[in-house]
Amino acid sequence: MPSPASHTIHRHQHHFGWDNAIPPILTVAPSETLSVDCSDSSDGQLTPDSTVADVAALDFGRINPVVGPIRIDGAQPGDAIKVTMGEFTPSGFGWTANIPGFGLLADQFAEPVLKIWSYDRAAMAPAAFSSSARVPLKPFAGTIGLALAEPGLHSIVPPRRTGGNLDVRDLSTGTMLYLPVEVAGGLFSIGDTHAAQDDGEVCGTAIESPMALTVTLDLVKRANLPPPRFTTPGPVTRHLDSDGYEATTGIGPDLMIAAREAVSRMIDLLVRDQGMAAVDAYMLCSVCGDLRISEIVDLPNWAVSFYFPRIVFR
Amino acid sequence: MPSPASHTIHRHQHHFGWDNAIPPILTVAPSETLSVDCSDSSDGQLTPDSTVADVAALDFGRINPVVGPIRIDGAQPGDAIKVTMGEFTPSGFGWTANIPGFGLLADQFAEPVLKIWSYDRAAMAPAAFSSSARVPLKPFAGTIGLALAEPGLHSIVPPRRTGGNLDVRDLSTGTMLYLPVEVAGGLFSIGDTHAAQDDGEVCGTAIESPMALTVTLDLVKRANLPPPRFTTPGPVTRHLDSDGYEATTGIGPDLMIAAREAVSRMIDLLVRDQGMAAVDAYMLCSVCGDLRISEIVDLPNWAVSFYFPRIVFR
Repeated sequence: MPSPASHTIHRHQHHFGWDNAIPPILTVAPSETLSVDCSDSSDGQLTPDSTVADVAALDFGRINPVVGPIRIDGAQPGDAIKVTMGEFTPSGFGWTANIPGFGLLADQFAEPVLKIWSYDRAAMAPAAFSSSARVPLKPFAGTIGLALAEPGLHSIVPPRRTGGNLDVRDLSTGTMLYLPVEVAGGLFSIGDTHAAQDDGEVCGTAIESPMALTVTLDLVKRANLPPPRFTTPGPVTRHLDSDGYEATTGIGPDLMIAAREAVSRMIDLLVRDQGMAAVDAYMLCSVCGDLRISEIVDLPNWAVSFYFPRIVFR
Repeated sequence: MPSPASHTIHRHQHHFGWDNAIPPILTVAPSETLSVDCSDSSDGQLTPDSTVADVAALDFGRINPVVGPIRIDGAQPGDAIKVTMGEFTPSGFGWTANIPGFGLLADQFAEPVLKIWSYDRAAMAPAAFSSSARVPLKPFAGTIGLALAEPGLHSIVPPRRTGGNLDVRDLSTGTMLYLPVEVAGGLFSIGDTHAAQDDGEVCGTAIESPMALTVTLDLVKRANLPPPRFTTPGPVTRHLDSDGYEATTGIGPDLMIAAREAVSRMIDLLVRDQGMAAVDAYMLCSVCGDLRISEIVDLPNWAVSFYFPRIVFR
């Protein structure tokens, strides 16, 4: 049994970007459990009533708020913070967008598009994308990190040595994430909760969804960690894999081009077989399809595969 | 039920490299099933009695033989061959090697190393790598392809538009692979059977293992396929995933560097936690660990993760 939360943190207790000069909102002892309420990555700019016009008008200065920072008593550079993800309490509302200039195929999808999701927050049954497509859900936090040693404000968008916007779809209940401490107290922050996303987050957004979660912070002295690693308590794709996959490949000497080709070909396949609009297929790929490196040794061509779970169209 | 094989092809009926001038050994009608006996990727140069000296002495002119070519009656450029993988009959013998100059971390592992595997070909129980590590098996064919339109001899090593050395670990029983036809008859060849390998094949070799298999070749007229795609009939990692994963990350603007970092960090972790030699950890990663692109959109840093299944050390 996880220990009950000893602190509750509200979504307004957030900041934008990483800056080790931001004063902590709280100091915790190692192994304390926190209850955290996270807003979505638009900081509430997108709501169940939003339209595509709201995507075009997004204030990017408010993108990806993270709750914190939280100081862990006794943490020093060279230590690690072990972050154990507890239960998620999803909100039932989510959104996925194609945001111009952002995403793996930004050159091909220039227009803003918004998809609003409504899912059953109690049953967490697969969420309807359309009359024919339903996406299995697995909530996780996209952004989990510590402050960087370098002074000044650093963008929240890229993941970094100390974690941050990792967007690793398996940072879900039970997973333990180890983050290297670079400043006294570590200065932990978390946010960017997603109801579902798969490897790649190819269109740039997941099912972005406000939700509450619990998280336990432990201190590992003198861990001398390289960048983040994590441990999952069990299988990671069983909610998706029962019906198998359709997979496309990109083959060539450049992994980025191969990844783009694999995703483009899956979009073409979904358009052909499911009669979807290409941009809808692109967003659907982002929330439930996996980008994998099948081989990276057969010189000079690598193979990147994109796996789309057939259960979505069951 | 799959149809019984209408032809049996022996391992000596092979060729090295892709060349559309190689005469077919057989012509089949669409939807025929073939029984094929494949040698390992060393063409029998490595045996259960081999030592590391045999790795250093490998004749690379005999690497990766493929059985064929097989002409599919009626296949024309613009069509596709649908390859349905049937049953595998493994031999019980396999090898994994670190071959100097080959593999994702060739700069770090310069010395030849050979691991000989003996596995239970009937039960197909996890195969012992050491007294503490056992690798779940899932046989597949690493090289499945058609001849290229361009005349001349093309190396077998890199995968190509028409397939070839894809090394996709899910080209196993029940998977359907679609390959684009570029020359009349398609000219299908297959080989490079593996008892196990995971996404990336990071050290450059899998559990290389001679085995027989059955395969059915169907003709899809005017498919106008881009490079290979495939369909798996069900889950692809349940033989590995029950105990969860240890995962390391590589974070940065270059996918290749991030992949190398993620694998290097997993090797470091296995050395530290399991007391393995680094090169053994590298080979073990190749046969059972997955290289995944966790995110490819959070400019300017991408996250590549390497997932190692904990069941191996259960």
